[in-house]
Amino acid sequence: MSTVLGSSQYGKAETRLVLVRRDTAGHELVDLNVSIALAGDQADTHLRGDNAKVIPTDTMKNTVYAFAREFGVEAIESFGLLLGRHFVDTQPAIARARVSIEEYGWRRLGPHSFARTGGGTRTAVVSCDAGAAWVVSGVRDLVLLNSTDSEFRGFATDRYTTLAETSDRILATAVEASWRHARADGDWAESFAGAQDALVDAFVTTHSRSLQQTLYAMGSAVLAARPELAEVRLALPNKHHFLVDLAPFGLDNPGQVFFAADRPYGLIEGTVIRDDAAPPGLAWSLS
Amino acid sequence: MSTVLGSSQYGKAETRLVLVRRDTAGHELVDLNVSIALAGDQADTHLRGDNAKVIPTDTMKNTVYAFAREFGVEAIESFGLLLGRHFVDTQPAIARARVSIEEYGWRRLGPHSFARTGGGTRTAVVSCDAGAAWVVSGVRDLVLLNSTDSEFRGFATDRYTTLAETSDRILATAVEASWRHARADGDWAESFAGAQDALVDAFVTTHSRSLQQTLYAMGSAVLAARPELAEVRLALPNKHHFLVDLAPFGLDNPGQVFFAADRPYGLIEGTVIRDDAAPPGLAWSLS
Amino acid sequence: MSTVLGSSQYGKAETRLVLVRRDTAGHELVDLNVSIALAGDQADTHLRGDNAKVIPTDTMKNTVYAFAREFGVEAIESFGLLLGRHFVDTQPAIARARVSIEEYGWRRLGPHSFARTGGGTRTAVVSCDAGAAWVVSGVRDLVLLNSTDSEFRGFATDRYTTLAETSDRILATAVEASWRHARADGDWAESFAGAQDALVDAFVTTHSRSLQQTLYAMGSAVLAARPELAEVRLALPNKHHFLVDLAPFGLDNPGQVFFAADRPYGLIEGTVIRDDAAPPGLAWSLS
Amino acid sequence: MSTVLGSSQYGKAETRLVLVRRDTAGHELVDLNVSIALAGDQADTHLRGDNAKVIPTDTMKNTVYAFAREFGVEAIESFGLLLGRHFVDTQPAIARARVSIEEYGWRRLGPHSFARTGGGTRTAVVSCDAGAAWVVSGVRDLVLLNSTDSEFRGFATDRYTTLAETSDRILATAVEASWRHARADGDWAESFAGAQDALVDAFVTTHSRSLQQTLYAMGSAVLAARPELAEVRLALPNKHHFLVDLAPFGLDNPGQVFFAADRPYGLIEGTVIRDDAAPPGLAWSLS
Repeated sequence: MSTVLGSSQYGKAETRLVLVRRDTAGHELVDLNVSIALAGDQADTHLRGDNAKVIPTDTMKNTVYAFAREFGVEAIESFGLLLGRHFVDTQPAIARARVSIEEYGWRRLGPHSFARTGGGTRTAVVSCDAGAAWVVSGVRDLVLLNSTDSEFRGFATDRYTTLAETSDRILATAVEASWRHARADGDWAESFAGAQDALVDAFVTTHSRSLQQTLYAMGSAVLAARPELAEVRLALPNKHHFLVDLAPFGLDNPGQVFFAADRPYGLIEGTVIRDDAAPPGLAWSLS
Repeated sequence: MSTVLGSSQYGKAETRLVLVRRDTAGHELVDLNVSIALAGDQADTHLRGDNAKVIPTDTMKNTVYAFAREFGVEAIESFGLLLGRHFVDTQPAIARARVSIEEYGWRRLGPHSFARTGGGTRTAVVSCDAGAAWVVSGVRDLVLLNSTDSEFRGFATDRYTTLAETSDRILATAVEASWRHARADGDWAESFAGAQDALVDAFVTTHSRSLQQTLYAMGSAVLAARPELAEVRLALPNKHHFLVDLAPFGLDNPGQVFFAADRPYGLIEGTVIRDDAAPPGLAWSLS
Repeated sequence: MSTVLGSSQYGKAETRLVLVRRDTAGHELVDLNVSIALAGDQADTHLRGDNAKVIPTDTMKNTVYAFAREFGVEAIESFGLLLGRHFVDTQPAIARARVSIEEYGWRRLGPHSFARTGGGTRTAVVSCDAGAAWVVSGVRDLVLLNSTDSEFRGFATDRYTTLAETSDRILATAVEASWRHARADGDWAESFAGAQDALVDAFVTTHSRSLQQTLYAMGSAVLAARPELAEVRLALPNKHHFLVDLAPFGLDNPGQVFFAADRPYGLIEGTVIRDDAAPPGLAWSLS
Repeated sequence: MSTVLGSSQYGKAETRLVLVRRDTAGHELVDLNVSIALAGDQADTHLRGDNAKVIPTDTMKNTVYAFAREFGVEAIESFGLLLGRHFVDTQPAIARARVSIEEYGWRRLGPHSFARTGGGTRTAVVSCDAGAAWVVSGVRDLVLLNSTDSEFRGFATDRYTTLAETSDRILATAVEASWRHARADGDWAESFAGAQDALVDAFVTTHSRSLQQTLYAMGSAVLAARPELAEVRLALPNKHHFLVDLAPFGLDNPGQVFFAADRPYGLIEGTVIRDDAAPPGLAWSLS
């Protein structure tokens, strides 16, 4: 028996980049959080502390800032592709790269004034190896709520079940969704807008018998609306809103007064995929 | 020498109330975080563990939910007044009450569907004693940014100064603002909207020589726009955006690429007040 | 009517300083978060953007680092006094200074190796004006729990009360405590250790009929143990642990299985003070 | 083309359980955060909202509390095995279960009094299918720091490199480590203590030429010390401590005064594995 190095990756996480585009009548603002992970032949540093094949994470940070100036940021997907491609193509020891980007939204208040919005963060994860690239776009912390049209009945029961069936409850979640592009190009802005619209619209219009059903409806709506997408992964916390029992105070409560709970919470995770989707390659994992 | 009980207060913090108004064609949603603090003759419990004058914090929570059903929530200010008045008027041992409420914003997506917004949280703090009530409204976590029209020059220097003067920087802050009403009544919704608009408009239109100057402009704009308000208190973190030095990479950086820093940050706090404002009473402190 | 500037202060918040003392056989580590607020004649910058009397917050940060090198950090109280004194004495426009410091604990693992501890953060707030200084020491996030010897009975009831009396519950809190020194000097390390020991010991040994009673016991124990202290302020969240009803599963639950709730929570705040304590001056407020 | 359901799982996350063992002279305290995820034949609910094969997440929460009473919590690994086994064995539609548990540490202060410690959280992830079970133990948020014996030199450079080589820096990280057991039984407490000791000891005693080298040293030390373990996965953020340039103030800084930065940070991830380790099965993934 001996001990060996398995898969490894390293990089610079959470480089905060704000880019002001000044070549327009009004300024434009791009606000990103960029995380880079690289993988390849890194045994020398792990086993012997020989860093000749290590590109410092500080250099990765510098590259983010320099590329923002040299190439601008058209979309987070294309900026991720530029960065990922660069590391794989210029660093002999780097076989694979992943660039994960969060984009924070801002609402225009004036020619050079903005207010941060908070309804969901746009995300992209770009993965590259020597020959190919994979792009996953998505959104997280998009908090949605239906105040009716949600039931939960007919579930399995056992000795430990106390939950009552309900035909009218609040359904609320903080959407974390990722969708894989079939190809590493496209109109990223239009694709994102269309996918998010489909996602939200499905949440709004689905009469829900379970959050699982809503999840599948959301994922399949995205695929129906966007032919360029191959797969959608969703993680939906069930943000429980419990009807408060007001009977002790001589009051009824016909679906009006709720306690919004923190923990525990349900967590529903699922994948919706085209049956003819190409294999995901490195889209979801570097190794 | 002996040891005595000084000022004290107690209450239930962060009761999460979601209210669905169903008496409309489309539902309406009210999403609140309610914190209550009561003060009065509490020496018995502190000194001897005699709780006869203690109203349990659990009862305060129940009261929040019951009042939401009985009276609805017209505005967080009026709901706070109802609650605060109740405790002072019905509990002999309670001389003063404070009700602090945060309201989370939601954007309508459909007749009973909503998306959480994130651009600032509306707040109210209502304080009551037997004879009077004081109302403070406000906003927090309202993140604003000007990408130009901000300078910082001509400051004092000493042995420890290294900061360069600048005539063009990003100015960004997360506004925490509170404004005191002269009277404990009014059109709360209109007052809030008008005050927030004045605050934001002053941030946008002020050519800033310091964040201090912007703070005063924001506070005085609120008072100019809203005669019902007596005083504005502001805490403005200076969310530093540092221009990245790209010269090592042979690149210029004419105000385009910035590093958004976390810590440390400047913190500017100040009060703007009418010179004929009535004294604040308990508006800012229960004791 | 006109609008005027009320009280104001400004400074650099959360300067993270780590100091390695290497003049010892084993290294020593000091890990601080330093926040500075200065007040004085700042009308010029607020009203006209004239910064001649403004010391940049960047300079404050530099001063923290330079003083750490020049003078070391004997205790956070003495380091705060050095810094506060410096700003008031050298900046003509600065009349008052406040230095707030958090100290993170580390446990020694070797001559130059350490593990971060997490059981409470030591704090100090030092306030200075031209003639005097006030020192407040304390602790926050010190989480304590008694699994018995806590009751809550005999409380006031009204229409909204549903809480049952209990003669045996879990009592848990995250202590936030501040104690004011009568004089701005002393053996800070010994004083802190003694005060914290008294605080914890009172929590452990008090049979509690209410968290209010425990609060007073904790505060008075600190004053009894430490003659150099004049006043103790405590904020004690009641971190509720609810006994889970296991009867539906045919199980009893004699004080064994609890749900640890997040929100809402009780919040008990109180002051314990010597009856002959000198007035607090600026100890609790810069203005 | 059509759209199909890919892998899915659902469960109750973050059930907070506090267990008081009262059958001892002094009480004992167990403080857990339990998350459950189940997978299997869930197409009916996803595709049609038919919940007959869905066990409510509320039932999972109830089961956690009931099992704590019925069986106690010997170790988080064995408690996870009990729970995971239960769901797979009693629910026909459930093919696989994962139970993830965090355990918060408490220090004894008296027979029934405790203070929360903060130096790292113990974790376990147990995965089960019909025939087998896999156990991964670990720790997260274990913050370690060496104030010397760390260098970073001889790294690859390119056009974007500005980092200077250093032969003496602070090395600090917040360890997130998981180790896979070869078999789903053992003395969990002894195994955890031994693995954590080996991990920490390797951090302390390794003269580090890179955090990658330290990572491998930590992982291989765990495997060397604990024959029952097959694989260690580590994620080590490089919590940068930057030496402050004090030259502008006429001061040197021989490795004494540091700025502890928040973001960005390096992130080094790697696996150390026995070359004869059995395949991981579902240890790291339910699907």
